[in-house]
Amino acid sequence: MPYEHKTRRVIRFAETDMAGIVHFSEFFKYMENAEHDFYRTLGLSVHMQDRTSAFGWPRVHASFDYLKPLRFEDEAEVHLVIQEIASKTVLYRCYIRKVGEENHLCAKGSLRVICITKEGGNGSMRAADIPPFFKEKIEAAPEEYLRELEDH
Amino acid sequence: MPYEHKTRRVIRFAETDMAGIVHFSEFFKYMENAEHDFYRTLGLSVHMQDRTSAFGWPRVHASFDYLKPLRFEDEAEVHLVIQEIASKTVLYRCYIRKVGEENHLCAKGSLRVICITKEGGNGSMRAADIPPFFKEKIEAAPEEYLRELEDH
Amino acid sequence: MPYEHKTRRVIRFAETDMAGIVHFSEFFKYMENAEHDFYRTLGLSVHMQDRTSAFGWPRVHASFDYLKPLRFEDEAEVHLVIQEIASKTVLYRCYIRKVGEENHLCAKGSLRVICITKEGGNGSMRAADIPPFFKEKIEAAPEEYLRELEDH
Amino acid sequence: MPYEHKTRRVIRFAETDMAGIVHFSEFFKYMENAEHDFYRTLGLSVHMQDRTSAFGWPRVHASFDYLKPLRFEDEAEVHLVIQEIASKTVLYRCYIRKVGEENHLCAKGSLRVICITKEGGNGSMRAADIPPFFKEKIEAAPEEYLRELEDH
Repeated sequence: MPYEHKTRRVIRFAETDMAGIVHFSEFFKYMENAEHDFYRTLGLSVHMQDRTSAFGWPRVHASFDYLKPLRFEDEAEVHLVIQEIASKTVLYRCYIRKVGEENHLCAKGSLRVICITKEGGNGSMRAADIPPFFKEKIEAAPEEYLRELEDH
Repeated sequence: MPYEHKTRRVIRFAETDMAGIVHFSEFFKYMENAEHDFYRTLGLSVHMQDRTSAFGWPRVHASFDYLKPLRFEDEAEVHLVIQEIASKTVLYRCYIRKVGEENHLCAKGSLRVICITKEGGNGSMRAADIPPFFKEKIEAAPEEYLRELEDH
Repeated sequence: MPYEHKTRRVIRFAETDMAGIVHFSEFFKYMENAEHDFYRTLGLSVHMQDRTSAFGWPRVHASFDYLKPLRFEDEAEVHLVIQEIASKTVLYRCYIRKVGEENHLCAKGSLRVICITKEGGNGSMRAADIPPFFKEKIEAAPEEYLRELEDH
Repeated sequence: MPYEHKTRRVIRFAETDMAGIVHFSEFFKYMENAEHDFYRTLGLSVHMQDRTSAFGWPRVHASFDYLKPLRFEDEAEVHLVIQEIASKTVLYRCYIRKVGEENHLCAKGSLRVICITKEGGNGSMRAADIPPFFKEKIEAAPEEYLRELEDH
């Protein structure tokens, strides 16, 4: 079962700031986009509905450590890896690299999301078990693999 | 009745791009924020609900002419003026100035919004007459005033 | 010589707003990204440098007319066409369509950019003739073609 | 000496997403804006220059834990506190609250920034000691105060 996903993107002008580099808040969008791309390759979406309720995935934690800057027209690889799946939450690790000879690491991120359901007309949200049709399509990465990624 | 609103804001780091100036797409957010501030001073909101339906104001046209750049920590004045009120739409004119000795004009914008209602569960949108409780609180600016603003 | 460029993109979660549709300011980024992609396919960049100075392309006008909304995970086609090339400026027309059976038009935009040079240490900007290595790679679209696009 | 700063802001439409709440990436901009506002109240700026070089403050770490959502037109208080000052870095803690009867906590963030200098024409960046004119204006918050804030 899949536990990782890689996408590539060219850095956009509007994502840079006056320091000439990608603004640090943009990395969080890159990480989220990779998560959604991952779901899509599995035939899933963050916005799904079964007979009685709608599922959603609010973010409960997000972080990045920044190592090297990205600049306009750089090609970036966003590498998302599932670190942990609990009954209601998923924890991702994210490695953003600048594509090139050295493929050097620019940032390391973490993202924890929680499964919620919105029910009825008032749309109140409640933490919920990850539905089986989601859970049976993903798994956590092997620990050695994660350790290896961290050491790079 | 009021036909204009002025707000001031300090330019934020994340609003700049690698050219060292505010990215042109940010001006559209400044204009929209001024519109919402204007409503708020009138006790109104873009998200209102009466007994049977919810109102909304999708944008049908937006434009800016850019004259001078804005930079990080500049103070900008966003001056919104109602140019025209029709049965279903409102047309705004917007002047963005850099606050300072000369108060020079940085950009001139236009925004046309249309009143819609969302009804029932499916949330289908339909163009609708601007509700009286909105219309009775605003009016179009006098033509001479608008002409004067344009000539500056 | 090329006078148009098409790119496709999937609508991102962070590009939507609480109305459930893409925020109107995002369309301006889509248009700019298409412009930069266009340059790139021609071996050009908005940030180029010759022996003595750096070129840039500040925006002098930008507008959109909004016809239909785009939503999360829609695929959008951004179609950029050169409408006019003057000595110092380029005027683009932009058609944003939702990819699908009907490929319906969601928004029509315009963008006028001006060529500037930044010289020496102080980085003062000055309007400049579009450099030959740029101009010889692009041309304006035939008028009939533009008319056809408008009539759709 | 000051070790904290509070600012208030009204949540903007463009900051929300289709889930009807502020997008999680926006919190990082709120935190950065509070940092810059803090500097400004001290007569400092993130972009300062002495006789030979320019200072900058790239972000090396940023994180948020999300507790409760913020919505359009909510008033938010952004409370920034200096947790630690080292020779080259500053670590901030940030509490974002929804202003109201209960003033409840919506998110807790951390931000570590590093002082760099850009020298000469090539603009190469190097980690540098925080300049005295900066350091003598700020201090870390007392530990008990930070502990108290965490326990709330």
